[in-house]
Amino acid sequence: MTLEEKIGQLQQISGDFFGDDGSSVTGPLSSYQVSKKQLNNVGSVLGISGADNVIKIQKEYLTNNRLHIPLVFMADIIHGYKTIFPIPLALGASWNPELVKKVAAASAAEAAAAGIDVTFSPMADLVRDPRWGRVMESTGEDPYLNGMLAESFVDGYQGELPIDQTHVAATVKHFAAYGAPEAGREYNTVDMSEWRFREQYLPAYQKAVEAKALLVMTSFNILFGVPATGNNHLMRQILRKELGFSGVLISDWNAINEMIDHGVANDASQAAAKAIKAGTDIDMMSFAFLGSLEKLAATNVEIKRLIDESATRVLQLKETLGLFEDPYRGISAEKEAKVVLSKKHLDLAKKAAEESIVLLKNRQHILPVNSEKSIALIGAKADTGDLLGNWSWKGDVSTTRTIRAAMATHFSNLAFENGYSFDPSDNETDLKKKAIALAKKQDVIIYVAGLTASQSGEASSMTDIRLPKMQLDLLTELAKLRKPIVTIVITGRPLDLTVVDQLSDAVLLAWFPGTLGAAAITDILSGLVNPSGKLSMTFPRSVGQVPIYYNHYNTGRPVTTSPSDKNNIYLSKYIDSSNDPLYPFGFGLSYANFTLKGLKLSNKVFGAGETITASVNVKNDSKITGTTTLQWYIHDLTADVVRPIKELKHFQRIQLAAGSEKTAYFKISTQELSYIHSDLTRSSDEGFFNLLVGFSSETQLETTFLFKN
Amino acid sequence: MTLEEKIGQLQQISGDFFGDDGSSVTGPLSSYQVSKKQLNNVGSVLGISGADNVIKIQKEYLTNNRLHIPLVFMADIIHGYKTIFPIPLALGASWNPELVKKVAAASAAEAAAAGIDVTFSPMADLVRDPRWGRVMESTGEDPYLNGMLAESFVDGYQGELPIDQTHVAATVKHFAAYGAPEAGREYNTVDMSEWRFREQYLPAYQKAVEAKALLVMTSFNILFGVPATGNNHLMRQILRKELGFSGVLISDWNAINEMIDHGVANDASQAAAKAIKAGTDIDMMSFAFLGSLEKLAATNVEIKRLIDESATRVLQLKETLGLFEDPYRGISAEKEAKVVLSKKHLDLAKKAAEESIVLLKNRQHILPVNSEKSIALIGAKADTGDLLGNWSWKGDVSTTRTIRAAMATHFSNLAFENGYSFDPSDNETDLKKKAIALAKKQDVIIYVAGLTASQSGEASSMTDIRLPKMQLDLLTELAKLRKPIVTIVITGRPLDLTVVDQLSDAVLLAWFPGTLGAAAITDILSGLVNPSGKLSMTFPRSVGQVPIYYNHYNTGRPVTTSPSDKNNIYLSKYIDSSNDPLYPFGFGLSYANFTLKGLKLSNKVFGAGETITASVNVKNDSKITGTTTLQWYIHDLTADVVRPIKELKHFQRIQLAAGSEKTAYFKISTQELSYIHSDLTRSSDEGFFNLLVGFSSETQLETTFLFKN
Repeated sequence: MTLEEKIGQLQQISGDFFGDDGSSVTGPLSSYQVSKKQLNNVGSVLGISGADNVIKIQKEYLTNNRLHIPLVFMADIIHGYKTIFPIPLALGASWNPELVKKVAAASAAEAAAAGIDVTFSPMADLVRDPRWGRVMESTGEDPYLNGMLAESFVDGYQGELPIDQTHVAATVKHFAAYGAPEAGREYNTVDMSEWRFREQYLPAYQKAVEAKALLVMTSFNILFGVPATGNNHLMRQILRKELGFSGVLISDWNAINEMIDHGVANDASQAAAKAIKAGTDIDMMSFAFLGSLEKLAATNVEIKRLIDESATRVLQLKETLGLFEDPYRGISAEKEAKVVLSKKHLDLAKKAAEESIVLLKNRQHILPVNSEKSIALIGAKADTGDLLGNWSWKGDVSTTRTIRAAMATHFSNLAFENGYSFDPSDNETDLKKKAIALAKKQDVIIYVAGLTASQSGEASSMTDIRLPKMQLDLLTELAKLRKPIVTIVITGRPLDLTVVDQLSDAVLLAWFPGTLGAAAITDILSGLVNPSGKLSMTFPRSVGQVPIYYNHYNTGRPVTTSPSDKNNIYLSKYIDSSNDPLYPFGFGLSYANFTLKGLKLSNKVFGAGETITASVNVKNDSKITGTTTLQWYIHDLTADVVRPIKELKHFQRIQLAAGSEKTAYFKISTQELSYIHSDLTRSSDEGFFNLLVGFSSETQLETTFLFKN
Repeated sequence: MTLEEKIGQLQQISGDFFGDDGSSVTGPLSSYQVSKKQLNNVGSVLGISGADNVIKIQKEYLTNNRLHIPLVFMADIIHGYKTIFPIPLALGASWNPELVKKVAAASAAEAAAAGIDVTFSPMADLVRDPRWGRVMESTGEDPYLNGMLAESFVDGYQGELPIDQTHVAATVKHFAAYGAPEAGREYNTVDMSEWRFREQYLPAYQKAVEAKALLVMTSFNILFGVPATGNNHLMRQILRKELGFSGVLISDWNAINEMIDHGVANDASQAAAKAIKAGTDIDMMSFAFLGSLEKLAATNVEIKRLIDESATRVLQLKETLGLFEDPYRGISAEKEAKVVLSKKHLDLAKKAAEESIVLLKNRQHILPVNSEKSIALIGAKADTGDLLGNWSWKGDVSTTRTIRAAMATHFSNLAFENGYSFDPSDNETDLKKKAIALAKKQDVIIYVAGLTASQSGEASSMTDIRLPKMQLDLLTELAKLRKPIVTIVITGRPLDLTVVDQLSDAVLLAWFPGTLGAAAITDILSGLVNPSGKLSMTFPRSVGQVPIYYNHYNTGRPVTTSPSDKNNIYLSKYIDSSNDPLYPFGFGLSYANFTLKGLKLSNKVFGAGETITASVNVKNDSKITGTTTLQWYIHDLTADVVRPIKELKHFQRIQLAAGSEKTAYFKISTQELSYIHSDLTRSSDEGFFNLLVGFSSETQLETTFLFKN
């Protein structure tokens, strides 16, 4: 391979460089100053799909490429290709790694059938700030749960290596700590100590790397002062050396060039040099590699060597994808039509929505709703297919079933009013009046509120995380009617639902539930499905509590339940708000009622190489079958550094028939006790630990054990 | 000295261990399990004042102490002893290091006359989160300005070393980074990279240490995972070794014992060992040293040596204070009466208030108010002496002149109504009605709003930083009258003043202005004094923007003024709010109008050891004499790490008569260009820099220069 050909492998371009006929489109070529010849060597493309389309472009490309090295097609398949599953933050609320694996496998099957080889998923970024719109793409705030689910995503996307023709390669993103932008503002500065990074942010990425994800994507943000894409310490030392990642490191969109705006490079050439030195293999759309590497290599033997290294990695990826054997990976329009939106996938989408939806409040069991009641269904959000959520590129909002349509199949006495609008030019008073008039006539109000997809995703940071004012005003009016109100919330991020909670009898958090979301909501409302979702991200009382998350560190002046603490102002608290969130991590109700008793340990003391087993009795103390998620947390009482007040270490989804019970177990080894010390190494220390167990992070039972080396 | 006597020097107790007759009080002794004998060896006491009182206690103590080593008396003299000056955040807004030095000197003179030897001031903590109540005790968000003012405080308190009898020793606090508690919650976790810590948080402490502050206080928070009070890296490496601090390191109140709650020590003995190993010399009120060091020293030769080291430092402090020559430092009740609340100090308090008050808005020059107009003075805050602010221990609110009383001396046609109340049991409707009735009758409404001292200080973190609802509701009603409204805001923290700004014609930020605050406000309202204060902390549009500060880092996707940015959603911004604050750092209006032109550089390029001089013409383009603060910022365009978009590097207060002008200068050397690199070292690099100048951080003129080694 010539140097130019090697560099070509390191450049990724977007789909708009190719026309419908597979030939290059001159517009993008000239606007990015890419020559036709360079295009023939480019190693990968993003955002193209459809079997026919991909076949045409690959065929044309192979004709033009001297060595006939196939293009690799990458795309953002985040929560489904055409069958759209709940957003990742909703999938996090399922606490179901097997489900997530199936979702990823189904997404991969559709994407692969449509000619896609690589997806830019999973996002393993730990998130704690609901102002950041992109929390929708994460599975939440917990290192352990995020790690489990990141692994499931990778397993589901990739299947067994080498990748077969029904799977795609996974990209762990965004390395690293993109989920902690300051003030929740998109693309903003990230800063934390390396100790905290290693303790809380690194583990989920690590799990995905250990699951053999073939790619990692660099994040837009800085870490320890240096943009990730040019961050030697982060990429060479931590990712490559310590985590042993040997796959392809791809930049995020234009991230190499953005080092100029970050102010760590004077020009694209300096940016390209920093990126490749840090270990970035593919330049997504900044053209710094294509424009600069050849000249840099001419005078710099290290860069020449790094180009070889990176090109080798890209070719290895193509090999693992089977592209050298079959550049088309067996695709055809016929196969695509069979796989995409198959009944199997749609059924899975429904199941995923059912397990992701979280029941936040259910006063006096007003849910499920008796189908004989007359219902006022209110809210523009009930009459739209905008239920797919951000990053559902090929999902079709216009054909997605609405909540109104789905409910009409079950509830015969149903009348609808918009009540509010997302269009500020609509007449608010008029909409409100009609809704109230309708509500007065019906037995029950089902109020569907929430955000649009564009208000809950990348580039949608918000300083005010309440529902839109028009929606809250209407709810306030509806509440005055003193009729039962069920509020359904469509959102991609935790919101301040304080007023919604106060004014509603029941609150159902539906997230952006995907293609079959409306059907899942209907089945939960009617009682055909018993909700089981549990929050994977804390819901604050107000934006003024942010960041708020369950696994915070001990302070020196914690608020305890002791009565004297109430009058002691010199504690770590606010004067105008509780420290507690509105809904804690791990929280979610069921129509059934579960109880917990008899927490036992096989031993109170254990040593290195040993384990102890905890057990507890879980009972369904109700007249309906239901599923809950039992959550086990550990609190390290004394350590070299401060430790979280509790950390999730194990969980299990448990289905129990009415009145039945079972014993759940948790085997504890030293692995569950290890943590990052002040010298940045991970190990376990002797000492006392609390074991806590419950149905949310507000645990119910606890006991203590001793680890003695 | 016996080991017990040495350890005694390391223990600090509070004043309530001593009765009026100077003898020990048994209550505290038994509740803290301190023996009478131990008390006789204790090295220092906090929170006692008054010459007679101190003389009595010292005398009794010297009788009981075997070696007749005097007690040292420490106290929180934060912004004055009995003459209360504006809170430190207000003093920050003066941008006047000379004034701050005088304020500290006056505070020291009063405190020293009252028998105090050491003050727990200045607080050099950089602050960016207005939810944290204790921002009132800092001088603001800028490393450079904080450093200048911390130095002024130290110089003013201490005078020349050794400390004479009119001065006190200064304590730099809280080392380190106490000003960055997560979610603005008091005593909460602090976390940041060591790079950011060294770049932004360390410099102000360093300046105070370089000014030879005799003490440093540890902070309550963790840094890099370890509580400051037991943080070896922070105290031994950074403070002692790198900063060369050889004075006394004192813990904050109970901070040693709080390592148990932090979860890094099992008991007081472990906590004591960690603290003394990290370099903490004095244990303030946790009794971990008194209770554990003797036993620890018996088996640990290192701790024995450290006790010697720490005791030596405490004795050196006493020597520097002259306590061995005169344990009473020349105090007497007569002298105290002369010094405390002297005319000189009160005059200084008035001047400090005048220079601290910030005019935030003045539509159509409605201020100053013509004394012939009829005025409706509204707001309970105008009729209270609660203008001193938190940490004004010996200030007397009950005798402090109110705004109402001060204004009555100048404005003859003045009528007052409370309008609102801080007592929730008061009848809001009634108060509001009376205020509106009054406002209708008068020409101008002067509305005094704000917080109580207890809502703005230590242990007063708030999630909602708007004015109390009752006050905002009243303002909304007043605004409907369409009369001119001047709103005066009393606060110790930046507030979300978005609605206040919208509804008021003029907004005057008075902070907690101190003993003579009401007089200063009156003189500004009447025009006798022309306001000159400039914010030293950014005022956000809403709490959802927090943290917001002017010297933020470059991102890779900055919002620029380019028209194309308006429609580009993929930039670092919010979808519901501007990135800009309501009032930026450095902002403040004058009744005069200043213009700037002709920014010049003596040279466009300079090398190591050289300097260049910038000059600019400042003109008072109005008919009234006024003072402004010219602010010089530098932006390092490319570096090893990301750099702030601008950093304050120089400023000058400039008084100009009506119509006059002058040239201001800034001599730039490599020192202004140095920064912390990714390897944590500080140096200057070659490259281009922008120089920006203006009357706030939203600068007006800029130019570029090159530094070439």
